[in-house]
Order: sequence, then C-alpha cells, then structure tokens
Amino acid sequence: MVMTDLIAKKRDRLELTREEIEYMIREYTGGGIPDYQMSAMCMAILLNGMTREETLFLTTAMTNSGDVIDLSGLEGIKADKHSTGGVGDKTSLILCPMLASCGIKMAKMSGRGLGHTGGTLDKLESFQGYSTSISEEKFRDNVAEIGLAITGQTKDIDPADKKLYALRDVTGTVPSIPLIVSSIMSKKLAAGADIIVLDVKTGSGAFMKTLEDARILATEMVHVGTLAGKKTAAVLTDMDEPLGYMVGNALEVKEAIRVLQGEEAGHVRQLCLELGACVLQLSGIADSPEQAKEMLASHIADGSALDKLADLVEAQGGNREDVYHPERLPLAAVQRTVICRENGYIAHMTADQIGLVSMHLGGGRETKEDVIDLSVGIELKKKVGDPVKKGEELAVIHARNEKDAARAEEELLACYQFSETPVTPGPFIKEIIMG
Amino acid sequence: MVMTDLIAKKRDRLELTREEIEYMIREYTGGGIPDYQMSAMCMAILLNGMTREETLFLTTAMTNSGDVIDLSGLEGIKADKHSTGGVGDKTSLILCPMLASCGIKMAKMSGRGLGHTGGTLDKLESFQGYSTSISEEKFRDNVAEIGLAITGQTKDIDPADKKLYALRDVTGTVPSIPLIVSSIMSKKLAAGADIIVLDVKTGSGAFMKTLEDARILATEMVHVGTLAGKKTAAVLTDMDEPLGYMVGNALEVKEAIRVLQGEEAGHVRQLCLELGACVLQLSGIADSPEQAKEMLASHIADGSALDKLADLVEAQGGNREDVYHPERLPLAAVQRTVICRENGYIAHMTADQIGLVSMHLGGGRETKEDVIDLSVGIELKKKVGDPVKKGEELAVIHARNEKDAARAEEELLACYQFSETPVTPGPFIKEIIMG
Repeated sequence: MVMTDLIAKKRDRLELTREEIEYMIREYTGGGIPDYQMSAMCMAILLNGMTREETLFLTTAMTNSGDVIDLSGLEGIKADKHSTGGVGDKTSLILCPMLASCGIKMAKMSGRGLGHTGGTLDKLESFQGYSTSISEEKFRDNVAEIGLAITGQTKDIDPADKKLYALRDVTGTVPSIPLIVSSIMSKKLAAGADIIVLDVKTGSGAFMKTLEDARILATEMVHVGTLAGKKTAAVLTDMDEPLGYMVGNALEVKEAIRVLQGEEAGHVRQLCLELGACVLQLSGIADSPEQAKEMLASHIADGSALDKLADLVEAQGGNREDVYHPERLPLAAVQRTVICRENGYIAHMTADQIGLVSMHLGGGRETKEDVIDLSVGIELKKKVGDPVKKGEELAVIHARNEKDAARAEEELLACYQFSETPVTPGPFIKEIIMG
Repeated sequence: MVMTDLIAKKRDRLELTREEIEYMIREYTGGGIPDYQMSAMCMAILLNGMTREETLFLTTAMTNSGDVIDLSGLEGIKADKHSTGGVGDKTSLILCPMLASCGIKMAKMSGRGLGHTGGTLDKLESFQGYSTSISEEKFRDNVAEIGLAITGQTKDIDPADKKLYALRDVTGTVPSIPLIVSSIMSKKLAAGADIIVLDVKTGSGAFMKTLEDARILATEMVHVGTLAGKKTAAVLTDMDEPLGYMVGNALEVKEAIRVLQGEEAGHVRQLCLELGACVLQLSGIADSPEQAKEMLASHIADGSALDKLADLVEAQGGNREDVYHPERLPLAAVQRTVICRENGYIAHMTADQIGLVSMHLGGGRETKEDVIDLSVGIELKKKVGDPVKKGEELAVIHARNEKDAARAEEELLACYQFSETPVTPGPFIKEIIMG
C-alpha cells in the first residue's frame, strides 16, 4: 500500500477501505507516513468528506493506535460523558456524582483547560489535595468502591489523535466533521465505557457556530458510537452565552456544589438532568426521560449526589468536608463589582470572549505550559434576556489585584450587547439525539 | 501573514491576493513554510481551484523565486516552445532550426528524459561532442550569431517549482490545472522569450488523457502567458500513439533529420509546421497560417533548416557533418524485426507503454541517476489505421543484445490492439489556441 495512492483515492472522491485507513493511521502514528502526506489527506477528507463507514474505520483505527482501557472487570454499567467544550461548563462535576449516586459507574478521564475553555481537572484541583494522576489500580478500585473516579489519562490513549490533531491545527484542517468525529469518538472508545453521552454545544462560544453544523456533528458521533458497539446519545445545547453564572475554576466548583445542594435551578441543572436522563435511559434503569429526571432530582434532594462528590474528593486525596463548606475553596484577593451603565435588556454575551477575560485574569492557559490561578474568574449576575438598570450589579470580577480587575471590567463590558426592547433567548436544550 | 490563514481561505473557496501568494511562494522556497502546510494548500487548490488571476500571481511569484533570463540584449524576436511531454517527440530538433532559418531567435533550455518520455538534451547528445552545458555567455553568443542554442539550465531557474513539484509528486497533488499551469509557465516566463508556443498532448500517452482536460490546460496556459506579457499560443495534438515512427534517442534524431531533409511527410512534419506557423504569426512575420507554413516548407525544401541544425551541432561542440551523415550516429548492436502475427488493422498503440519498452531497452531513465544508451529504441513500421498482414514487418527493435531484443518484442506486441475492420484514426492536430 502506498500513501500517495490513498490520497489520490480520497482526492478523487473514492471510498477508502478499512485496510487502507488502518494502514494509514498505523504508519502515520509510527512515523512511516510523513506529515506532508497526512496533511494533504486531511484536506482531501475535509473537502470531499467521508462516508459514515469510513469515519467509523478511521475512529476505530485511531482508538487502536494506543492503549484501550478495559473496564469489563468492573461490575455494573459504565458510562462516560464528553462535551465539545465551552465557557462555564462545570457539568462533569455535577453529572458524574449524580449518576454514581444512581448506581452508574463513572470512570472518567478528563482534560485541562486551554484558551477560552476550562478543564475539569483544573476545577477539581480547587479541592486541596485532590490528585488528578492516580494510578490505574487506584482508579479502578475507586470506581468499584464509590462508583466514580475523575483523573487525567492513565495510559497512552490514542497517540494517533495527539499527532493528527497537532497537524490539523497548523494546516487548516480542523473543521471537518469526519475528522472531528474520529478525534472525539476514538478517545471515548478507548476509555472503555458501555454508554457515551455527548454534550454538543452550539453558538458563538462553541466550536460549532450553527445549530445545523452541531446537529450534523452530533448525529455522526452518535452513529459512529453506536456502530462501534456503544450505547450513545447526544444533547445539543446553547453556548451562545456562558453556561450558568460562574466562569473560573473554584467559582465553577462552587456553582456545581450549589446545583448539587438543590439551590440552583437554571441551565446547569437542566443540562445535567438531560444528560443524566440519556444515560439512565440507555442503561435501561429508567423507561422515560421524565422518570429518569425524577430519579436524578430525588438524588439531589436527598443529598446523595452531593455526598458522592464528597466521596470522590476524599477518594482522590482531598478533604470531603470542603464539599459541604465551599467557603474553604480558593478565593481571589479582589472582588470588583461591575455596574451596568445602561437600561434595557441583555441581548447577547459573547461566550468565548468572556472565557478570554477569565484567561487574562489568570484562570486559563494561553499555552499548555502556563500555570493558572484557581481563585480568579467572573461571577455573572445577569444572563441573556434579563432586564437591567443603570447602576445595577451586572457581574463580580474575582482578581488577583485591582489592576487586573479594572482591565477585566472593561474587557467584560465589551462582551455585552444590550437592547432597549425585551429579548427572548432561544431554547437552551436544542435537541436530543438517541442512538 | 500566517500560512494557516491562507490555507483556510483557499479551503473556504475565498480568493488569495497577489501579496498572499507572493508571501507563500517566497516563504515556502526559503524554508519558512513547512511542507506539511504547503501540501494542504496544494490539495485545497486542487479541489477548490484558482481564478485565472490567482494562477497568474502564482506563476509570476514562482518565476521570481529564482533567476530570470534577460534576453533583451539580443536583437530580433525571441521564441520558446514547450511540450507537455510524450513518446517519440523530437519536435524541438526540427522546429528550432526551422524557425531559426526564418530569422526567429531560439534560445531554448531543455530537459532530460524520465520514465516513458524522452528529453531533447539526451537526443542531442547523439551528436558526438555536443555540449548540453555551455556557459551563459556562449549561449547568448550562439543565439546572436546563428539564431539558436539548445542547452540545459544555465542558472538557478524557478527553485519554487523544483521544491513544489517534488512535494506535489508525493502528495497526490499533481493533477491540478492551476498548479500545472504555474509549474510550466513559471519556467517559460523565466526563460525570457517574447513568444511562447505550447504543444499540449492529449491521449493515452499524454498527461492529459482527454481532449477536454487538455483544452482547459492549454487555454489557461495561453491566458496566463498573455497576461504575463508574452505572445502565447497552444496546439492540441494527439498522443494516443507515439509521435512519428522512431522512439529512442539517436533514432529520433535520425527521424528529425529526415523531416528536415524533406523526406518525411507525416505527423512530425505536420506538427512542426503548425507550431512554427503559430510563432511566425505571433511574431508578425506571417499574416496567415498558410503563408507561414509555406515559408517553413520552403526552408525545408532549400536545405536552410537542415543547415541550421548543422550550425547548432557545430556551435555546441559537435561535428556538423554528422547532420548530413546520420549513419554516423550511434547504432545499436542488434536489430530485431518484429513480425505481425495477425491480419487486420492497427486499432491502438499504447504510447506510454511503448515509451517504457524503450526505457527497458536502456534508452530511458527509471530514476534521475540512470545512465542511458543513446542507440537503442524502436522503429515503428506501421501506425494506427494501417492495414497489416500476418508475417509483415511491424517494427524493428534496436537493442544491446538478443536477450533484450527478445524481451522487448514481447513487451512491444502487448502494446498493440488490432481490428478486423478498417480503423480511421482521429485528427492528429485537434485544436489551435492563439493568445
């Protein structure tokens, strides 16, 4: 097999076989195919597309490029969740304990934040002592014992994706549905769960700016997951404004705790119930979304979901009492209230720009090497559609010093658009796609 | 400017500006843009195309990546010719002396053969002593004095094309009209002539298999040449069977001499008159194709065209008498007559396969480093449409030994298709496109 022939096939809109795709990924990962051939292939895939079968072959070839976690030794139903990334997304911190409290095994490998998006591992480190690099043995033991573990990658997962993503990033070949699907799903397949639920964001702060594109991506991911033998579902949700009210690591943990305490009833809780309901339905534990949501809500109401978060923190080296006393979590030196300068309604908040405000405060990474400050961030007091009055509190900036806070205030105000007439935001949950 | 942005523009079907294209070629040639970005760009160009203006900018940027020959010091009209390559193509050996005998200055840089196609420089080396690497000064002096010179590249012409072509060759990005046009025309523009005539082949032995593709390529090259300030024309000709009767270096020189002696009246002469007529019309020397062809034919008839070939051979170090005594040119040790094994008509001869038979005999290069034998090759006795009888002479193989000859006979016979009913070949000259 010769890579030039495979490029020519894809260039000429012919279908690649499973053997050809496996050869390509194996050789590229091993260094037998150079970057300049792979980037031409990626552009041909981007422009000519791939059939669902080709995408499946690509996905499984990438999964098999590295270690695949075997969770078959663990009793019960194992579920995993993936979000396409957004600002203020603290969903995993709520969803995983909630599902664990329902008896689902959540063996989750998470990532760190980069650019305007945050990462679950960073957020969890707000709990002093929490270890994001426990051994594989400890990981399995914790899942078996308390039903959940959230850590960084324990093994050499999907090296093909690491190499391929780095290449796509510098060759204009990121926005390709088959390449995005295979990148996300190959890692999820390698993580070994039986059930995969996908949170696909759409809007200005999301990778997929339009609902149509997000729907195509979600549909393809659900199909590929299902064809690969996993029960898969996707929820399409709004990321035109940040998710919930908190942006920043410790701040988002605090919001997650409030949701688990039953004190918050907004989009964050809504999303967690929706994603959780998908998992409970796919696992056969619930017959309908209504039944599933009732079950999940009852685990919030009786405190068992919050207790699971405390179990998680304790099992991975933190102090479980911090969960019940969020005032112990990191708090920034300066809190600066941002006052509204006009009357009207909030028409728009640019989610990715708000993510960058938090990054500039020190809460996010510009490059992978940056060290972040867990305490800083933004506390939104108003969301899209809310009426606002001049002089009213719009947000609170949590910063290391007054200078940072002042700069962040100006940056933050530039993220808002106001309207004189009432604004009705679109639906938050756009669609649910069950495999 | 960032290359990733330029790739994304072309990927999204936006037009690149002159500045962007110049930046890209400058940086790529200089090593500032890596191969893996350029190959993604080439695939995006291949699949999304380029406007005529973008192709022009790409062509001139490539021309300016290296030295540009300045022929303005030479008196008279300077013309150049390019062929897209084929089997048995000895046109330059006839056309250049013929046009020089009409007063056109032919300052030609030619190449060597590779794969199934031959090269003019190899063919000229059949004249003992002929130097294909004369100094730039000698090159100019010869053109000024006798009206023609044919040599290898004297300077660092079009390094962008060398680098880009090598990359395209291994990334499936060769068959792109804008990339082919810019590759050919950038070198022609660098060669400094006022008039460019293009011989664009079509058929099984040509790069462009269909007339439609060849027409698009020819039209774009004529437009780009004209927009770059050169008088440009193209002739579309058949390369479904080899051109003329001889394939092999010294053999082709012998056929060229026969044409210049007025002894051959077939496709080779027809093509040379057609290409020559384009140049004479573009130069204003002739008013009509008929007048031009008459002038050219008269220079064959009076021997002045053949004398120009003798002048060329002498000026570049050979013996002019060899031109008048072609029996002195290299002759292979073995001549093996290939006898026809059936009755009927020749329906098809696969040109590129016949080129490979000659290459296997030692007359061509598989890799650039191969040393070739100038004496070997194939003398065709019959062409497409000719009636043939069992036992009749079909071809003569010129080989180094009987073993080579026997193998070549079997290979050659596999190149023919016969028909029981008469076959009428399509027109040899398909179209003429004047700029």
